[in-house]
Amino acid sequence: MKNGSTRREFITHSVKYGAILTAGLAGAACATHPVSPPESSAQGHPWPWPYAKLDPEVGRKLGHDAYFSGKGCSYGSFHAIIQGLREKVGEPYIYMPDEIMIYGHGGGAGWGGLCGALNGAAAAICLVADKKTSDLLISELFGWYTQTDLPTDRSNEYGVKKAYGVNKYDQLLPQTKSGSILCHTSGTTWCNKTGVSITDVKRKERCGRLTGDTVAYAIQILNDHLDQKFKPTYVQPQSTTTCNSCHGKGGEIVNVLSKMDCVQCHGDPHKQ
Amino acid sequence: MKNGSTRREFITHSVKYGAILTAGLAGAACATHPVSPPESSAQGHPWPWPYAKLDPEVGRKLGHDAYFSGKGCSYGSFHAIIQGLREKVGEPYIYMPDEIMIYGHGGGAGWGGLCGALNGAAAAICLVADKKTSDLLISELFGWYTQTDLPTDRSNEYGVKKAYGVNKYDQLLPQTKSGSILCHTSGTTWCNKTGVSITDVKRKERCGRLTGDTVAYAIQILNDHLDQKFKPTYVQPQSTTTCNSCHGKGGEIVNVLSKMDCVQCHGDPHKQ
Repeated sequence: MKNGSTRREFITHSVKYGAILTAGLAGAACATHPVSPPESSAQGHPWPWPYAKLDPEVGRKLGHDAYFSGKGCSYGSFHAIIQGLREKVGEPYIYMPDEIMIYGHGGGAGWGGLCGALNGAAAAICLVADKKTSDLLISELFGWYTQTDLPTDRSNEYGVKKAYGVNKYDQLLPQTKSGSILCHTSGTTWCNKTGVSITDVKRKERCGRLTGDTVAYAIQILNDHLDQKFKPTYVQPQSTTTCNSCHGKGGEIVNVLSKMDCVQCHGDPHKQ
Repeated sequence: MKNGSTRREFITHSVKYGAILTAGLAGAACATHPVSPPESSAQGHPWPWPYAKLDPEVGRKLGHDAYFSGKGCSYGSFHAIIQGLREKVGEPYIYMPDEIMIYGHGGGAGWGGLCGALNGAAAAICLVADKKTSDLLISELFGWYTQTDLPTDRSNEYGVKKAYGVNKYDQLLPQTKSGSILCHTSGTTWCNKTGVSITDVKRKERCGRLTGDTVAYAIQILNDHLDQKFKPTYVQPQSTTTCNSCHGKGGEIVNVLSKMDCVQCHGDPHKQ
């Protein structure tokens, strides 16, 4: 087993170079040990890590509940998938601190950029799939998110039936298509339709259910890919295709690389 | 050592439950082992992981070079920090596959959202700092990115002197303040100023240098925080403060949670 060999090498190096003491940023002093530079970053376990089929509905519930753990949406979606793999596969997932993705909350430390539920789920996909595959699956996940009425009927049903482990609000929630992968666009679109304040518990429950929905769809496409039956369904808006035909690769003014809906934020500058 | 104990427990569980065989998404069959659900995700090593001071200039060069590894900007910035910690601290960093952050390239699988250099560096910060600390440091990093002329003079100097390990283009590059944490905004702002195509090697070199710059600043603020001398310097644009005074917490129409520059994309809808 590779980790065993690594640990022996590690102990040898620790003795060779001597143990040092550093302080972790959280303030706790940690005894740590220098080692020789590894040959690659995959010394622990070769990347991609192994994937085993998970239950989307278990993930939907866990994603929702983890959102309310105090660690937020991005941790929530990442944790729901990794915890499933930790239980089903074991090593190497026991070495992954799911808290690495906390920062994605609120679109990145509250900045309103990439939706944290998407960020966390994308990291989980990228952990178990090579670059080409993860690009394919993540693009489908992102596209699905922009065009799907969220929260889904299923997660609304769980809310009404109090089927989650955490029940902050047990009514049906209005649904919106965000048209965007961005946190602030997604949240504001929903608030503008519903009239609900973005600080209200209903909006938080909306993001909790949406986190679960994102986990469930990520698991579904991972399962489908494992079964060799994955087919992308996302079709980008015509406006994006039109803009990119001039501003993207092969166009006249090649100054944009983006798959987002241009018109949603910028309008159509060429429109009379 | 906790990992040792974990490994013993793991072997016990493997014998108890029997080994299973699953296929990784990359197509390779991997022998994996089920274990009992861990009590927390921190079974491998308690989160946050220990941080030791790194050299920002080593990180700047490694971030640049890793950008050109074929794995891109987000892997590049994450790898540059984690590799530094792997060499200096050793465990638990040998268990982290830096490829987990590949997906951040091009603003998330090429979608043009959160700049991948920021996404990767933020994940590294979040790995070594608790939520409150990482929010503080990441917000400073994001703000710095939006208001700094990138690539910096230092990374331009490295380029001209061929001081990088990878030398794709060895001239000075024009600098721009992106005003945004978004990939497509950052890239297009630079292309519009320079007239360079977004598919040109000069733009790629610009993103490579920018990745190194982001790593160097992330390391600087992590080092400063470890030395208890970190002070945030970022001040958000007045327009954002003005918009949030009505649309953010405590305002009249509380429908936005964002720290991004509203006017950059949306103009000022209240302007005559």
